[in-house]
Amino acid sequence: MRPAIQEKIDNLNKPKGSLGRLESLAMQICLVQQTLSPSLAHPCHLLLGGDHGIEREGVSVSPREVTWQQMVNFTRGGGGVNMFCRQHGFHLRIVDVGVDHDLSDCPGILNRKIAPGTRNFLHEAAMTEDEMNRAIEVGTELVEQCAEEGCRVVCIGEMGIANTSPSSLWMSLFCDIPLDECIGAGAGLDSPGIGHKRQVLRQALENAGFLRDGGRGTAAAAEQIIRYFGGFEMVTAIGAMLRAAERHVLVLVDGFIMSACALAACRLYPAAKDCMIFGHCGDESGHRRMLDTLGAQPLLSLGLRLGEGTGALCAFPIVDSAVRMINEMNNFQHANITKYF
Amino acid sequence: MRPAIQEKIDNLNKPKGSLGRLESLAMQICLVQQTLSPSLAHPCHLLLGGDHGIEREGVSVSPREVTWQQMVNFTRGGGGVNMFCRQHGFHLRIVDVGVDHDLSDCPGILNRKIAPGTRNFLHEAAMTEDEMNRAIEVGTELVEQCAEEGCRVVCIGEMGIANTSPSSLWMSLFCDIPLDECIGAGAGLDSPGIGHKRQVLRQALENAGFLRDGGRGTAAAAEQIIRYFGGFEMVTAIGAMLRAAERHVLVLVDGFIMSACALAACRLYPAAKDCMIFGHCGDESGHRRMLDTLGAQPLLSLGLRLGEGTGALCAFPIVDSAVRMINEMNNFQHANITKYF
Repeated sequence: MRPAIQEKIDNLNKPKGSLGRLESLAMQICLVQQTLSPSLAHPCHLLLGGDHGIEREGVSVSPREVTWQQMVNFTRGGGGVNMFCRQHGFHLRIVDVGVDHDLSDCPGILNRKIAPGTRNFLHEAAMTEDEMNRAIEVGTELVEQCAEEGCRVVCIGEMGIANTSPSSLWMSLFCDIPLDECIGAGAGLDSPGIGHKRQVLRQALENAGFLRDGGRGTAAAAEQIIRYFGGFEMVTAIGAMLRAAERHVLVLVDGFIMSACALAACRLYPAAKDCMIFGHCGDESGHRRMLDTLGAQPLLSLGLRLGEGTGALCAFPIVDSAVRMINEMNNFQHANITKYF
Repeated sequence: MRPAIQEKIDNLNKPKGSLGRLESLAMQICLVQQTLSPSLAHPCHLLLGGDHGIEREGVSVSPREVTWQQMVNFTRGGGGVNMFCRQHGFHLRIVDVGVDHDLSDCPGILNRKIAPGTRNFLHEAAMTEDEMNRAIEVGTELVEQCAEEGCRVVCIGEMGIANTSPSSLWMSLFCDIPLDECIGAGAGLDSPGIGHKRQVLRQALENAGFLRDGGRGTAAAAEQIIRYFGGFEMVTAIGAMLRAAERHVLVLVDGFIMSACALAACRLYPAAKDCMIFGHCGDESGHRRMLDTLGAQPLLSLGLRLGEGTGALCAFPIVDSAVRMINEMNNFQHANITKYF
């Protein structure tokens, strides 16, 4: 397949390689879809919301009620994510997988709540094995439904106050990078705030010390790490990514938190990476290093740190350009142009 | 105006500063348009074509007939630029300002030909003063028409085999950077090809030695440099940029060649930069340094080197996102959200 795709790209009406990253993107997309005429039909954005026990330790600038308030706000179209979905034609599916507030009566929010927030991983595992499996299952189901509806590309975003904390821990454990180098300002902590966050996360890691001991390369060890620190929205995202890989659906990966989920998904199933397109490299400490570990080349670097999947959505037109390039551009023969080499 | 814009941006429903580059873009656009509710109505892409006398010296991989062949191809919708214009809703205006081929019968190409290509600047000035003024005038007229039609943003692209050569010379003279560091592979020269290009351009600069002598900071000296080496499509672009500044029309600046034109335009009228949005930083040697000289922060870096304005067009959705952000996002008060810190 690869040589046929390369030949098609090289015969488009342009100097070879002159569309740079669009060409490598087109290659990736054609390989995932096993076609010379790829499609981005029915793009869907999964916005997953959940709360975190660790929020009780004051690791975030925003209080936990912002999670549910924002979920409601998204149903009314006023969030950043709504604007980007409208701009790029994404169907927005808002899913409560673990928000600490009763949203069951809120129209426009799919109720898949596993529990009203995770446990506080400073003292115990964030979720039980059963809860983890249910979160994976929800992600699987969401992407399965997308695939059945003909969707070829999903974007995944999150809303969960304090979720940079579990992301930093996953990063540290999966990339084997000292914890301090994985912790940043989140949505806007000041310097003492970051110091406190560091202390809390260091303590959490120490309390859960057994995780530091060997076997981290195995899927079983990865599951332990995921379960101990993860949020429901994050584990659901992992389930979604794994199902997307099985169904050859492209996944647009957002910033720090979703990259941590991508990293976790790849520890469980390395081939999951083939379907992933990394939209945005943020300023959050360590994001670039996490992407490097994944061998990922993000499309944008615009200093976004809103979350909700906005960085990935923002990159969608570039993915679209790559697909249009291979589908719509003339080749030299058709265009009657002296071939550039 | 600036404080009012900043206040509006800061009260949007997001942590302060969390939309990064989109926020600074929104500020720039609001300042240009002097409004809190900016618009990108009727986007227009000006594709300017012209040939270069210096092409006779073998400084390009592609022969000069590719210029007119591509111009015709663009009218049929098969070029890279067509694809991007369709994707982002740009009206495409294809203008012959100096192509070495009779295109007057070709439907879809506006005939503003000044001459069938410039003179060879290895031996003499590329154009006369009169020709330069006419090219500026064409650019003025094109943007004036856009503005009258309600267009708030123009993108400018070029088609002109060998036009990285004049761009390198402009860069060297305007930025005071040694010529060798301003010369790259163009659309795909190999290493001996680049060596030859270097030799030719070095000789051209020597032959036109008087230009090296003082007074380069003045507008009159800038005009001399522009006229001696420039292409008609490049000088037309300068005229377009200057008029855009007068009419408060945003200009999306493309890669190496259009950045050289932006640089020249700013030497003639520094405030022209306020309206410029730099779309893409390419790999062409020195492009980054030229952007640094301009104090420009390009939005994308995707390794594109096709020209035609494609790098700038590719960045348009980000500009659009910035405008949607300030126009469409809820503020905290409307959204009933606990304001983040």
